[in-house]
Amino acid sequence: MTEPFDAVDVIAAKRDRHRLSPEQIDWVVDAYTRGVVAPEQMSALAMAILLNGMDRSEISRWTAAMIASGERMDFSSLSRPTSDKHSTGGVGDKITLPLAPLVAACGIAVPQLSGRGLGHTGGTLDKLEAIPGWRADLSNAEILAQLEDVGAVICAAGSGLAPADKKLYALRDVTGTVEAIPLIASSIMSKKIAEGTGSLVLDVKAGSGAFMKELAQATELAETMVALGKDAGVHTVALLTDMSTPLGLTAGNAVEVAESVEVLAGGGPQDVVDLTVALAREMVAAAGRSDVDPAEALADGRAMDVWRRMIAAQGGDPDAALPAPKETHVIMAPSDGVLGRLDALAVGVAAWRLGAGRSRPGEQVQAAAGVVLHAKPGDTVRAGQPLIELHTDTPERFARAEAALEGAFDIGADAPDLPASVVLGRVD
Amino acid sequence: MTEPFDAVDVIAAKRDRHRLSPEQIDWVVDAYTRGVVAPEQMSALAMAILLNGMDRSEISRWTAAMIASGERMDFSSLSRPTSDKHSTGGVGDKITLPLAPLVAACGIAVPQLSGRGLGHTGGTLDKLEAIPGWRADLSNAEILAQLEDVGAVICAAGSGLAPADKKLYALRDVTGTVEAIPLIASSIMSKKIAEGTGSLVLDVKAGSGAFMKELAQATELAETMVALGKDAGVHTVALLTDMSTPLGLTAGNAVEVAESVEVLAGGGPQDVVDLTVALAREMVAAAGRSDVDPAEALADGRAMDVWRRMIAAQGGDPDAALPAPKETHVIMAPSDGVLGRLDALAVGVAAWRLGAGRSRPGEQVQAAAGVVLHAKPGDTVRAGQPLIELHTDTPERFARAEAALEGAFDIGADAPDLPASVVLGRVD
Repeated sequence: MTEPFDAVDVIAAKRDRHRLSPEQIDWVVDAYTRGVVAPEQMSALAMAILLNGMDRSEISRWTAAMIASGERMDFSSLSRPTSDKHSTGGVGDKITLPLAPLVAACGIAVPQLSGRGLGHTGGTLDKLEAIPGWRADLSNAEILAQLEDVGAVICAAGSGLAPADKKLYALRDVTGTVEAIPLIASSIMSKKIAEGTGSLVLDVKAGSGAFMKELAQATELAETMVALGKDAGVHTVALLTDMSTPLGLTAGNAVEVAESVEVLAGGGPQDVVDLTVALAREMVAAAGRSDVDPAEALADGRAMDVWRRMIAAQGGDPDAALPAPKETHVIMAPSDGVLGRLDALAVGVAAWRLGAGRSRPGEQVQAAAGVVLHAKPGDTVRAGQPLIELHTDTPERFARAEAALEGAFDIGADAPDLPASVVLGRVD
Repeated sequence: MTEPFDAVDVIAAKRDRHRLSPEQIDWVVDAYTRGVVAPEQMSALAMAILLNGMDRSEISRWTAAMIASGERMDFSSLSRPTSDKHSTGGVGDKITLPLAPLVAACGIAVPQLSGRGLGHTGGTLDKLEAIPGWRADLSNAEILAQLEDVGAVICAAGSGLAPADKKLYALRDVTGTVEAIPLIASSIMSKKIAEGTGSLVLDVKAGSGAFMKELAQATELAETMVALGKDAGVHTVALLTDMSTPLGLTAGNAVEVAESVEVLAGGGPQDVVDLTVALAREMVAAAGRSDVDPAEALADGRAMDVWRRMIAAQGGDPDAALPAPKETHVIMAPSDGVLGRLDALAVGVAAWRLGAGRSRPGEQVQAAAGVVLHAKPGDTVRAGQPLIELHTDTPERFARAEAALEGAFDIGADAPDLPASVVLGRVD
């Protein structure tokens, strides 16, 4: 078969700051998936895209080409509207766990096809696997049946969705080309659009524990993704949220499940409750049901009811005790004062090093590993009180986790200047 | 073995416009040669270098690392000084053929380790192989003996010189990363320095038939290479020369050998004579023998004598008839006037399409294929006179060669504005 383009010409066009044509984009994504464009060619193109950019129509076409590389799911047979949420990832970000049942309790079908964690941000599936019996892998038929019956499903994304993205992401990871907004945006959106949701709410995080450290970058990413959603006919809204400090008081697996259940029971840390309700309101509105108030569904126990049914439907026992760590170690506050800063990245790295996360795909994680915070920025602490609790099954990990936390917090005389809300902005 | 660096960190440093450290450069070149840095990582780095540049000390270290990847030749045992020449490549550029014997006739040893052609510029070895019996492959011992005995050798470069460059060049060729001045300069200079010459004269071409179309780019490349030579302790000078029109009246293999012999016999086109003598003067001076005048060695037949011995020493018969083409086709001047422009690239592509060059490494070339010009810019022509003669053994190639020449020349009323000399500038 004769190829309509030459890879070198496509690379040279982007290298020389030209627009790639729709035909060039369709071809290069497809030919890379087929193995005709070699990895060394795609990585050179990815670097040229990173340094020279793509305009909105190029990114939109690139996203469409990645979607076209695989299958698409179809939820149109369901009796209720669908809404999906995607977070760009943060430390202690267990929001999907209370959010999916909460939105389902509002009459919306919530298909949350998730991944496993890599590096310092945990994976939603890793967290839920702390629940005895719970399984992540469902067939498409099981997903549809559970959405109709329970309203919410959190499970592993099938490998048939956007295989070009899967291949390209693995390449970018080893070639220093992850940090390109056009490629990040098209990677996220190609999977979400292929999943076939009717509406989508994005939680784009900014701060030390997030991929985007600066609000300006996070805003650019959010605007790019919202535009891609619009181009694909998916109603898309983004919230910009704070990730300078961990969400809630836990980072890990079982500890985050426990905190999520607290939220569903009407308690839990205020920032987790606030963000869960804020995202639920966006999802409900995006699905056309602004008449329903998620705060009520959380308060009256309907969300907890969906949670129990959702966990049970996937083999989990919602009443089972969660795994407890073999060892814990507590870091005490060194002085009296107000906690001014508690760095999200440091806490994420500590949880990872304790065994909550993995360094390589396929690595086993510890269900009981993680970090529990006894104070958050703005709280008054006393010298010698517990500040940070470390959990692991393998105590030789404590030293490196403690090293990650060195210099990660400040205790001072004055109250810190904190954001008024975990939600920093909104893009639609 | 633990590697001291991670490829992604090195790529990210250049992506983010930082200087690479000497240790990073040594490692990445060596690790790529060993296969530890993958091709897709090196191509991403090459694209980052192309778009973000390297400073002089980085390029110098990169060159040294490529030299260190292989063996170095050593001509210090010879009784005479050595001088080498490198041309960045042009159409009709047979200069090495008369130049090497001419400089040898001045008492300098001239080791010309050359390559084969690819694309529209011919290869010196391909040209000499038009001579019946001549062979390109010599052992290191044969090279040294011939340099001592005859004074000049033109032969194939061994594969042991700068293997990192060989591997990197093949990668750049398929990833759109050829056009990076730091990588072009270090590629050329690593081979030339590894060849062990005492002094080096560069012929850096600018114009349509050259790799560098603009004089400014060619000047930057020349300055970069001269600096690299200095850093490596090799006395290096560059001439910037015109490649907007072909050199001499021939482009191909046997036709260029015949024209070179004409020059050695005291005739030949003026531009070829001028450039040969200009480069010979630079080489003789660079080798510390400014007292000798190459023009005399050309005029009195000493250069021709070295030519005959040099060809014979490599099995060639200097008196044998050169291969004649099976078919010729003549393009006539369409009108009376002055030839204003004769595009070098078009002539090069025509010669290539006639069979003088190859499209893939290893492809066979036709010794008799090529182009003979009957006029050069500035010459007066008459309608119907022969203008361009095409030679090939495979006449089905004429149509595509003629297509390459469409629009390649202008005939007008006024004399064109031509450069006063083929030498446009000098960098030392």
